[in-house]
Amino acid sequence: MYKLLHTLQVELGERSYPIVIGEGMLGEYDLSNYVRGSQVMIVTNDVVAPLYLEQAKACFSDKNVDVVVLPDGEKHKNWQTLNLIFDALLEKQHTRRTTLVALGGGVVGDMTGFAAASYQRGVPFIQIPTTLLSQVDSSVGGKTGINHPLGKNMVGAFHQPEAVLIDTNTLHSLPPREVSAGLAEVIKYGLIRDTAFLDWLEQAMDQLVDFDSKALAEAIFRSCACKADVVAQDEKENGLRATLNLGHTFGHAIETFAGYGNWLHGEAVGTGMMMAADVSAREGWISSADYDRILRIIRKANLPELPPANMTPADFMSLMAVDKKNVDGMLRLVLLRAVGEAEVTSRASAANLSATLSAFCRQKT
Amino acid sequence: MYKLLHTLQVELGERSYPIVIGEGMLGEYDLSNYVRGSQVMIVTNDVVAPLYLEQAKACFSDKNVDVVVLPDGEKHKNWQTLNLIFDALLEKQHTRRTTLVALGGGVVGDMTGFAAASYQRGVPFIQIPTTLLSQVDSSVGGKTGINHPLGKNMVGAFHQPEAVLIDTNTLHSLPPREVSAGLAEVIKYGLIRDTAFLDWLEQAMDQLVDFDSKALAEAIFRSCACKADVVAQDEKENGLRATLNLGHTFGHAIETFAGYGNWLHGEAVGTGMMMAADVSAREGWISSADYDRILRIIRKANLPELPPANMTPADFMSLMAVDKKNVDGMLRLVLLRAVGEAEVTSRASAANLSATLSAFCRQKT
Repeated sequence: MYKLLHTLQVELGERSYPIVIGEGMLGEYDLSNYVRGSQVMIVTNDVVAPLYLEQAKACFSDKNVDVVVLPDGEKHKNWQTLNLIFDALLEKQHTRRTTLVALGGGVVGDMTGFAAASYQRGVPFIQIPTTLLSQVDSSVGGKTGINHPLGKNMVGAFHQPEAVLIDTNTLHSLPPREVSAGLAEVIKYGLIRDTAFLDWLEQAMDQLVDFDSKALAEAIFRSCACKADVVAQDEKENGLRATLNLGHTFGHAIETFAGYGNWLHGEAVGTGMMMAADVSAREGWISSADYDRILRIIRKANLPELPPANMTPADFMSLMAVDKKNVDGMLRLVLLRAVGEAEVTSRASAANLSATLSAFCRQKT
Repeated sequence: MYKLLHTLQVELGERSYPIVIGEGMLGEYDLSNYVRGSQVMIVTNDVVAPLYLEQAKACFSDKNVDVVVLPDGEKHKNWQTLNLIFDALLEKQHTRRTTLVALGGGVVGDMTGFAAASYQRGVPFIQIPTTLLSQVDSSVGGKTGINHPLGKNMVGAFHQPEAVLIDTNTLHSLPPREVSAGLAEVIKYGLIRDTAFLDWLEQAMDQLVDFDSKALAEAIFRSCACKADVVAQDEKENGLRATLNLGHTFGHAIETFAGYGNWLHGEAVGTGMMMAADVSAREGWISSADYDRILRIIRKANLPELPPANMTPADFMSLMAVDKKNVDGMLRLVLLRAVGEAEVTSRASAANLSATLSAFCRQKT
């Protein structure tokens, strides 16, 4: 039998939905209530399918369940792979009353969500995230999409799921590198709006990187609560929600430069947060003690603190120019006004940004 | 100077927008008010660009205007062509504050709209339809999308434009076949909800196929008014809006079977409306005199009354199975309860549907 640990609600009026967190949910917890019609299409990948597909199917016992298995990895987050989902839906004659189910990490969730947003101009979907990163971040909030060779997540939609089911048991099958990547987004919540959580993280980090179940469940719950609160206030990212992108402007540039999949998203965000902290320190917004504290946390989480060795300041500038937060050609960054307080701004001085890029890039030109 | 003929409003709360109809609008009418930022990307095709691109640019005199020219035709309404728009946006570093402009027929409008719905998870766009079909139907109402080899318009989004600008002078460059195709959708409005308009169309049809400017402007205005009214009542097609698909279930099957672009959309809808009228007559909903009246109108508009010679009843059944109106495996059709009154129904008898397919298909198996 499953053990229900936490239930949260993302409050978005008629698009509100629950986040259900527990142990042993897959195969036990009934999700049929969140399916309107009789058709279900589970979308997963070739790594997750052997581990959890049969259990996921059992969550929809009285439905007609079809399955499409995608190749694993960020480098497949593109049109070609997205089309495999549409092919399967049309071959199995799924109508507008179908429900899609994302079973996997952030790549599967983002692509399934965008497929759901676009199939027949929009059908419902359910998130069953199986990685720490997708459980604490990407499965909640309705951002969906695919990458373009010139920019990450450049094509997509806002499309909220019907429900998010998090089974913390799935974390036991993750490689340590993926847990660290997930912890980058966990640390982010502490840095941008929850100093008490950051204090707790400093204490609990050793247990977290050691796969301690209780600590991980607590980190997931507090992260989801933070994300749900921000999304409820600013669903379409007109303001507050952009602060969730701390480290992401630098991070997306790293991911695009390195080639999708060579750096994990969370790893790039970890380095990106250090770069954002560095600009914030140069602006005088945080102290050097604050900066050192953040660096210690990033190191404890086993996250990289420098971008790829062959990446130059010019690479960053060119890749950051198309960031979604930019307005009329002005680069906008999420910086730390203080530890626990983030701000989206275009007021950082070009000199400080340039100094940060120089300091972090080992290849200067 | 331009001559403003009509202005209509599509009433959708904060997503309301105007339809501006006139002669000589292109190159003269200022659309800058509908652009929030400084960037504009005009999307057009290689047939329309030589005719109207320079004039369209002049409608955005104080903006930074970039252009992407797509290959012409329904067979290019796919991922590959859609990606050309994303390529151009990213290469020219367009941000979330850009505005897309669709300059062309329904294919350009549907693809530009879907690109706008998806680029950076959604940017605004403006419709400048240049064919009769797009002026009376596809540019209004926010349906956007692309085709899939297994079904027409199967991937897309609801995304309303900021404004629709209709310059009736662009009709003078159309081939007669395209005017007839547009008239299919015009006739549709009469059949589903406006008998007075249908009476007028019977009188005016000779002038319409003869490119009479005054008659065409009137047909466009009355068609847009009808469409705007339906969309305002049912934006996401939960009910009433589906009646706008009279003839489209059969029509989409014809288009998919014939290969996209071999039949014009309006031609397929013309034949599809005859087939829907035939089922309606067999159900006893309309009289044989009504059926003959509709047939005369379709013939006067120079529209085809039979599907492709090699298409069988089985081809129709298989292609109609994935229609977006279907619910849980039940085929749903738009039929005529009477001339001037349409209904979406799954209650038509299988025997009558089968008899209609037999009657219209020259190849029986």
